[in-house]
Amino acid sequence: MAGAEFSDAAVPRELLRRRAYNLRWAQQPDDVIPLTAADSDFPVSPAVRERLTQFVADGLFNYGPPEGLPEFRATLAQWYTERRGVPYEPTAVLATDSAAAAMTVVARASLAPGDEVLIPDPVDFLFEHAIRRAGAIPVRVPLAPKTTATDYVAALGARLTSRTRMVWLCNPHNPWGTVPTRRWLQAVARWAVRHRLRLLSDEVWADITYPPHRCTSVAALAPEIAAQTVTIYGFSKNFALAGLRVGAVLCTDPTWREEIVTAADVRSTAAGVSVLSQVAAVAAMQAGEPWLAEFLSHLRKQRDLVLGRLRRWPGVATRPPQGTFVAFPDLSRLDPDAEHLCQHFEHKAKVALVPGSPRWFGPGAAGHVRISFATSREILTEAFDRLDPVVFELASGR
Amino acid sequence: MAGAEFSDAAVPRELLRRRAYNLRWAQQPDDVIPLTAADSDFPVSPAVRERLTQFVADGLFNYGPPEGLPEFRATLAQWYTERRGVPYEPTAVLATDSAAAAMTVVARASLAPGDEVLIPDPVDFLFEHAIRRAGAIPVRVPLAPKTTATDYVAALGARLTSRTRMVWLCNPHNPWGTVPTRRWLQAVARWAVRHRLRLLSDEVWADITYPPHRCTSVAALAPEIAAQTVTIYGFSKNFALAGLRVGAVLCTDPTWREEIVTAADVRSTAAGVSVLSQVAAVAAMQAGEPWLAEFLSHLRKQRDLVLGRLRRWPGVATRPPQGTFVAFPDLSRLDPDAEHLCQHFEHKAKVALVPGSPRWFGPGAAGHVRISFATSREILTEAFDRLDPVVFELASGR
Repeated sequence: MAGAEFSDAAVPRELLRRRAYNLRWAQQPDDVIPLTAADSDFPVSPAVRERLTQFVADGLFNYGPPEGLPEFRATLAQWYTERRGVPYEPTAVLATDSAAAAMTVVARASLAPGDEVLIPDPVDFLFEHAIRRAGAIPVRVPLAPKTTATDYVAALGARLTSRTRMVWLCNPHNPWGTVPTRRWLQAVARWAVRHRLRLLSDEVWADITYPPHRCTSVAALAPEIAAQTVTIYGFSKNFALAGLRVGAVLCTDPTWREEIVTAADVRSTAAGVSVLSQVAAVAAMQAGEPWLAEFLSHLRKQRDLVLGRLRRWPGVATRPPQGTFVAFPDLSRLDPDAEHLCQHFEHKAKVALVPGSPRWFGPGAAGHVRISFATSREILTEAFDRLDPVVFELASGR
Repeated sequence: MAGAEFSDAAVPRELLRRRAYNLRWAQQPDDVIPLTAADSDFPVSPAVRERLTQFVADGLFNYGPPEGLPEFRATLAQWYTERRGVPYEPTAVLATDSAAAAMTVVARASLAPGDEVLIPDPVDFLFEHAIRRAGAIPVRVPLAPKTTATDYVAALGARLTSRTRMVWLCNPHNPWGTVPTRRWLQAVARWAVRHRLRLLSDEVWADITYPPHRCTSVAALAPEIAAQTVTIYGFSKNFALAGLRVGAVLCTDPTWREEIVTAADVRSTAAGVSVLSQVAAVAAMQAGEPWLAEFLSHLRKQRDLVLGRLRRWPGVATRPPQGTFVAFPDLSRLDPDAEHLCQHFEHKAKVALVPGSPRWFGPGAAGHVRISFATSREILTEAFDRLDPVVFELASGR
């Protein structure tokens, strides 16, 4: 039984073609394998399905409370306390309709037009997007997998102005797949607090790490850091619930939290999270850990498969992801224009990838390509079997 | 079998105490009957439960498409075409996470700070709320159940300024329960179009009407009116899906729709609607009509019960609702301060109602109280049995 849930046969390809959007199966030609959006190809845990089925049988879908169901807030607070040593109270939790929504809400609540926010370059496009939607300005700070805390702090300092308000971290980091160490985070967070900057820690990937790496929550570092930090969390990566649209903001400062709740506009009922989605998240946290352990064990094998295959490609540099289920190799030796390269891959190899272009990750992603590996061994192998000849042809100068 | 779904026994009181928020069972003391938020006490249709159960069994909750699932958009377009004669195309539909969210999105997309919007007084608080969140100004136009189109148009004209941009209608009207006639709507809509004002028609109550009254969609009046109109729709009132957070904006003008989609921020994945919630709405539209017919038949009896009971109260004026499942009697003879009166009812009769105060409906609601009757005959009877002695004591001068 162990692992059967992540066998080749477990990926329901035909159903995915009808259900998986966001650059994936349902939005690609039938003959294309999409290793694009970071979204799993596997069905969710039995625990989630069981709990949802029970809730649906009751048949009551009345209004939930604005900030989230009591069981959602309590379970998430406990989850953070137990897994990451952050003693969040249930009142610290605001349910949001995704981690992405959580970021835009925090930006709107915390930033005024013209304010500056220090964000990594590269990083997921939602960082820049959320900040710009609030009228504020993202200031890019170069971050490579090997960037030391000392270097990152120096780079932050070089960009500090009188308009700087926040430092946003992606932890674990998408697209690098790095999991910052406690010391690294501590140096950065202490610097931020010393300069009276608030922190946002996007921990949507927190549960997807490979030993010995482990996600340290920024809010777990010290009480004075926690007081200046909001944590962003979600259920799309760990429990494959992207389509249910459920995430959360965790914030201990009551004044800041109130500003976030107001910005979210939940009290008016103009925003909120489906009660079914919250029930799914609660089930995942309460009874989904065995499934998550299997998922992680499968992902580690997938990661090794990706690394093994990438190593065969001439001139390709990559580092093993410490977390996330994406690899982000530098393919600039094949083609310096990653957008062009990805079009070529899709056309010739029938494999869709996400190019490391400014619109997705920032200028620091140039020449890279993101490969999501949350699929079956069979599909990933097939994708590389298709990519190999195209890569070799490119490498040989055609 | 017919009607069993709306029998006294069909209301799961114990479960409602754990599940129904927004001023209702879960947020009231155990001994209080809440006829507050317009939300049904009955479980949803079997069709919705069956379809959700099937979808959950598949176990795939991948990202949906930004503007809504193709089947959601197609089914809603067809639903509007067949039920209300508005030939919407699927592309006209944007799924939103409630009708309330739809209103705030349209306001954000269509209004600049300082713009003025003509709205009825009284009307649901979300009208004012959505407009103010966009930085615009709601301008109240008195509307009583008997206000003629000529009088309403004159009142609109008296408030027209160079900053006026839109006219918002609540159709059917909450809290009056009136269903404007085609001629009434035509006069108002033609006036708006003549003055180059856009229209918003909140039709979240469209399916809850009592014969001979029937909701006429504003967009069904004429092509030149449809071109200037957005329709707001939802599934909370007709199909009891408030907690699933699913509604829609329907808009035929491609430029305006694009502005609405941009304001909604769905393409970034920062907003969207749970795929399960969309599946529930599709099931309701495709297979929920028999249930809806039974619900309406039950509600008509409930409405008559409310009217019969209110008529016993001395000095109380009320009119039969033509639509919606709320009554809105004038109780100013009992107490001119509706907030105070509702506190008194809750304290003495253990029945919670919504006061007709400015924060809920606007100044035009003064002296009125809103009573939601989407519950069982037994509970409604019990509520009036509790209210009667308190009312009679008040009427007799204590």
